[in-house]
Amino acid sequence: MELNFQHADPGLSLMGEAAAARGLLESGKCKGSDFLGWLGLPSAMVSQVSRIEEAAARIRKSDGLIVVGIGGSYLGARAVIEALGTDFPVVFAGHNMDSLYHSDLLNSIQKKKYSINVISKSGTTTEPGLAFRILMNHMESRFSRDELAGLIFATTDANKGSLRPLIKERGWTDFVIGDDVGGRFSVLSPVGLLPIAAAGKNIRRLLEGAQAMADIVRKDSSEKNPALQYACYRNASYRSGKKIELFLSYQPGLHFIAEWWKQLYGESEGKEGKGIFPASVDFSSDLHSMGQWIQEGERLIFETILDVIHPEKDIKIPSSPVDDGLEYLAGRSLHEINRIALAAVQDAHSKGNVQSMKIMLDRMDEFNLGQLLYFYEYACAVSGIMLGVNPFDQPGVEAYKKTMFRMLGKPGF
Amino acid sequence: MELNFQHADPGLSLMGEAAAARGLLESGKCKGSDFLGWLGLPSAMVSQVSRIEEAAARIRKSDGLIVVGIGGSYLGARAVIEALGTDFPVVFAGHNMDSLYHSDLLNSIQKKKYSINVISKSGTTTEPGLAFRILMNHMESRFSRDELAGLIFATTDANKGSLRPLIKERGWTDFVIGDDVGGRFSVLSPVGLLPIAAAGKNIRRLLEGAQAMADIVRKDSSEKNPALQYACYRNASYRSGKKIELFLSYQPGLHFIAEWWKQLYGESEGKEGKGIFPASVDFSSDLHSMGQWIQEGERLIFETILDVIHPEKDIKIPSSPVDDGLEYLAGRSLHEINRIALAAVQDAHSKGNVQSMKIMLDRMDEFNLGQLLYFYEYACAVSGIMLGVNPFDQPGVEAYKKTMFRMLGKPGF
Repeated sequence: MELNFQHADPGLSLMGEAAAARGLLESGKCKGSDFLGWLGLPSAMVSQVSRIEEAAARIRKSDGLIVVGIGGSYLGARAVIEALGTDFPVVFAGHNMDSLYHSDLLNSIQKKKYSINVISKSGTTTEPGLAFRILMNHMESRFSRDELAGLIFATTDANKGSLRPLIKERGWTDFVIGDDVGGRFSVLSPVGLLPIAAAGKNIRRLLEGAQAMADIVRKDSSEKNPALQYACYRNASYRSGKKIELFLSYQPGLHFIAEWWKQLYGESEGKEGKGIFPASVDFSSDLHSMGQWIQEGERLIFETILDVIHPEKDIKIPSSPVDDGLEYLAGRSLHEINRIALAAVQDAHSKGNVQSMKIMLDRMDEFNLGQLLYFYEYACAVSGIMLGVNPFDQPGVEAYKKTMFRMLGKPGF
Repeated sequence: MELNFQHADPGLSLMGEAAAARGLLESGKCKGSDFLGWLGLPSAMVSQVSRIEEAAARIRKSDGLIVVGIGGSYLGARAVIEALGTDFPVVFAGHNMDSLYHSDLLNSIQKKKYSINVISKSGTTTEPGLAFRILMNHMESRFSRDELAGLIFATTDANKGSLRPLIKERGWTDFVIGDDVGGRFSVLSPVGLLPIAAAGKNIRRLLEGAQAMADIVRKDSSEKNPALQYACYRNASYRSGKKIELFLSYQPGLHFIAEWWKQLYGESEGKEGKGIFPASVDFSSDLHSMGQWIQEGERLIFETILDVIHPEKDIKIPSSPVDDGLEYLAGRSLHEINRIALAAVQDAHSKGNVQSMKIMLDRMDEFNLGQLLYFYEYACAVSGIMLGVNPFDQPGVEAYKKTMFRMLGKPGF
């Protein structure tokens, strides 16, 4: 993984601040230091890999997996699985309360034997809680308790929460979400690892990639540290008046990497009236929708581009007698053309006064992805500390719940 | 369709400006008045419906439809089809240049007989042009020219472009994109109508809904006109320093309505260093990712919420002996709970100084959707005129192309 700036000011003047923030993080003296368990996950998880792989193998003997979770209990797994692709059916539930979505889901599993991985620290969050009720109601009408014991996998708190007694009583397989790992930093815990392994992906390589990145970003306080570079770049951009960071990818499979990144940065930094607004576009598709605004609209943005050097599959452009003006591309690689579009767009945006940083991944595999995830997490912590907020809390997410519980008639509200 | 404001200042003081903008639009005296064909599409298309339906019926006898298009030749059809749902396979191509995406697409149709609707005014746009080459190369290796004549449907310019000679020579079925209809305003032309009809949707009702909305917004210059209300609301918000409009929906099927809306507003207004940044979230999912930023981050945003009153399908929450804290919801409708979340979030965001407007649709059917699309288009034109820009051009989308063609080695660049 390599960073590459096309920015008039990549913010290196803030490197002293970034190094200090890194120091606070590593010494556990930053705000929110009760939630630093994610720092050590790449090594801590190694001992759990066999058990996760064994559970994943059992899941893969069923017809598919339904992951029940929302926010940090959903986006990381989905991001990795969609980026790598899978032939095993992995579907998601409990990340919305749409009746049509869940009706269609029930219909689609009616004659199948799906496993369920319910992921929730408390077990009482409304969206996954309701989805799990709906799914269990369906499953219990079709399978015995013994059969269900082989199909239900619960990832939850070690001791507390509504899922704990059920795990004990009904013999479900369980995995633990550590107290010191917040949802948006949990992709490298069993929260992400079990669904990713069930999708047939190599979680050992994912953790190795993350560890390789940890070995760089945790040990280097120089300006060569890519996480510090990114933290400087975005804070400098923000301080210069850029309010929106736009995440650009050129492969539709990376869409949910952007969604995961939005939670990571939006929830970590968007507080106390501060914080860059994280947004994303899927290029080149959205070049034909948001391209005009980016090129010539209000100058509020800076860009971060995800560039994958080598393709997993490629297509050669066929020759054609038709006069479509594209014959000069015959015989060329589609992936190469896509990457040239990326470079041309970066150049045009720079001329339109939109500066950018490019993250170059060698290829889209587990190792590279592990690097990328850890890089983003570490840079996020440093960036949030530089911004002066607690990057590990989310005080604002409770605001609507009280009103909702009252309106729904929840006892006690 | 009904608008409902929870905004301290819905901007009604700008109503005079909005009415004047509407006058310029209706009298054809606004900037870009060569591109006002969309205004009359709901009535102009009535005479073409039978022919479109007949083509759609032929498409539906094949195994599925591949729509080849990008930007305005893609988003409208996808938005409507995903909002309404379909059992007929409609897939998209040529809206990106990802080699993996197109490899997987080729694999998935290998043993099937798909129809293709290629949508491009010029036929030479890089993304759909390359995808069409790749697909034709595949199809020509499997089907005779006669068979292909029944499978290819081209929506293009009446006279010009690289598809025209092929239509004549190979007997493809063709539909015309009018010279006076820009891509982002073309969903109610054959560009959108043919794929929507092929998905089994009632395009007559879609056009009737659009006409019903046209009858309101084109004839009323009072402050009761919902398109003028929305145009006032967003311009007033922008002038008061709100830089981002956030489109909120609570049903995943509406995701591409937001994407279509982004192109419509972003491309129409993002120019001359001006323009609101259009962004969207899928709630309640993204409440658990972007919710924190929205509630407590930098106060840069205002919201537009899409609320659908009646569900197409619903689920009753089952009772459960498990102590998950959700038994008070047993027997309730999931759709109702989802709408209560919407109301609670709107209230919480208002307290967090994020003001909103709600668009209430009676239900998600063709008629209501037709209303919604026309409403957005008309309000966009009025809003752009109020902003002082030409809402119908897109001068910035060419910026990267010159560089890209040079880098790709296109003759003449």
